[in-house]
Amino acid sequence: MLTLFHHPFSPSARFVRLILAEYGAKTELQVERPWERRRDFLLLNPAGTVPVLRENDGPAICGVFAIMEYIDETRGYAVGNRRLMPDHPDARAETRRLVDWAVAKLDQEVVGPFVRERVYKQEMPSSAGGGAPDSAVLRAARTNIHHHMRYFGYLAATRNWLSGDRLSFADFAVAAELSCADYLGEVPWAEEDNVKAWYARIKSRPSFRPLLAEKILGMPPSPTYEDLDF
Amino acid sequence: MLTLFHHPFSPSARFVRLILAEYGAKTELQVERPWERRRDFLLLNPAGTVPVLRENDGPAICGVFAIMEYIDETRGYAVGNRRLMPDHPDARAETRRLVDWAVAKLDQEVVGPFVRERVYKQEMPSSAGGGAPDSAVLRAARTNIHHHMRYFGYLAATRNWLSGDRLSFADFAVAAELSCADYLGEVPWAEEDNVKAWYARIKSRPSFRPLLAEKILGMPPSPTYEDLDF
Repeated sequence: MLTLFHHPFSPSARFVRLILAEYGAKTELQVERPWERRRDFLLLNPAGTVPVLRENDGPAICGVFAIMEYIDETRGYAVGNRRLMPDHPDARAETRRLVDWAVAKLDQEVVGPFVRERVYKQEMPSSAGGGAPDSAVLRAARTNIHHHMRYFGYLAATRNWLSGDRLSFADFAVAAELSCADYLGEVPWAEEDNVKAWYARIKSRPSFRPLLAEKILGMPPSPTYEDLDF
Repeated sequence: MLTLFHHPFSPSARFVRLILAEYGAKTELQVERPWERRRDFLLLNPAGTVPVLRENDGPAICGVFAIMEYIDETRGYAVGNRRLMPDHPDARAETRRLVDWAVAKLDQEVVGPFVRERVYKQEMPSSAGGGAPDSAVLRAARTNIHHHMRYFGYLAATRNWLSGDRLSFADFAVAAELSCADYLGEVPWAEEDNVKAWYARIKSRPSFRPLLAEKILGMPPSPTYEDLDF
């Protein structure tokens, strides 16, 4: 049995939920609020961050890079040509580059600030840094997202999926990040038709359904968040 | 032929230089100053960051995660039991967790700020953000390093190498980061004997020699930087 420690609006934990579903791995979800610094959780992951995956009583698998490779190494054989990691070393490198782009660069410059300011700070007590969003931070993220949209637009226009011919981890890493920004109505879809068309294909996969059903108390999703034909 | 685009004081590029040497992969080094945003380099890696590895006329392999796995996938068979990635999925996950800790957490909280404030800002023109170091940033990094030293001390005291019984990518990722801070005299070695003893073992490997010979013009290394018996 797999257990995933996650937060519903952690973009990288969303990425892991998507790929676990794509690999058909039944997983128990346990919500963790990293800012609470729960002692038993810090024993599992001293970095104190989600996502953390655990298989039965095995050791904790911490962070997206470790989890993504672990899922493919332990379950890749069972899904045949639906594996999300390509075979050739060059193609694997391209998939990993784009996952890194999503969970590090896109997250730091755009989605992390949106989620922290607009979601986490509402949930956190003021002693842990909660409070009103910082408008300067939101403004910077709203500027930065255009560069990323242009780059994803270029990839979506020149390739079948973001990292090449085949659906890969890269598509889910980028889609998971964008899904958090989309809930908050922060994705300028009209700017990039190719990104929109690519996201519509990803969003209609069964693995995406649980994410589209997530709700933040008192903060409804943007009008098109659940809409497959947005 | 392999070509590595690097900066001598980029901690993650140092990590790649170490592991290329450990795998016996002859590599041509090309210095890149990421803040110059050189057009041909941005075509190789649109993120504009080092390290980037290229094999002959093949595609660019960008970033430590992609490069580390690529080296092991393409050269692991040739080095036998000197591979730096363990075989078992659990042990691989632990190695990847600690590489992530080094190149993301340790770099963001400690080594990145030291290098940016004390090295890069001396090399950069003021139009690119160069200038005097920000003492508040240095103070924060000097506070943060103690937590990391304690954690590495715990690992070094309970394991033969940082991620387990065998030398792995994790040891080189952490050592590469610490080597940059050590050049600047910013590592409180006296606090953690176990970390010091572990670093002395890593530092005496032939792969480390080129790093110990690096010099910044006008800024000599700390007195013990090159000393194997520090």
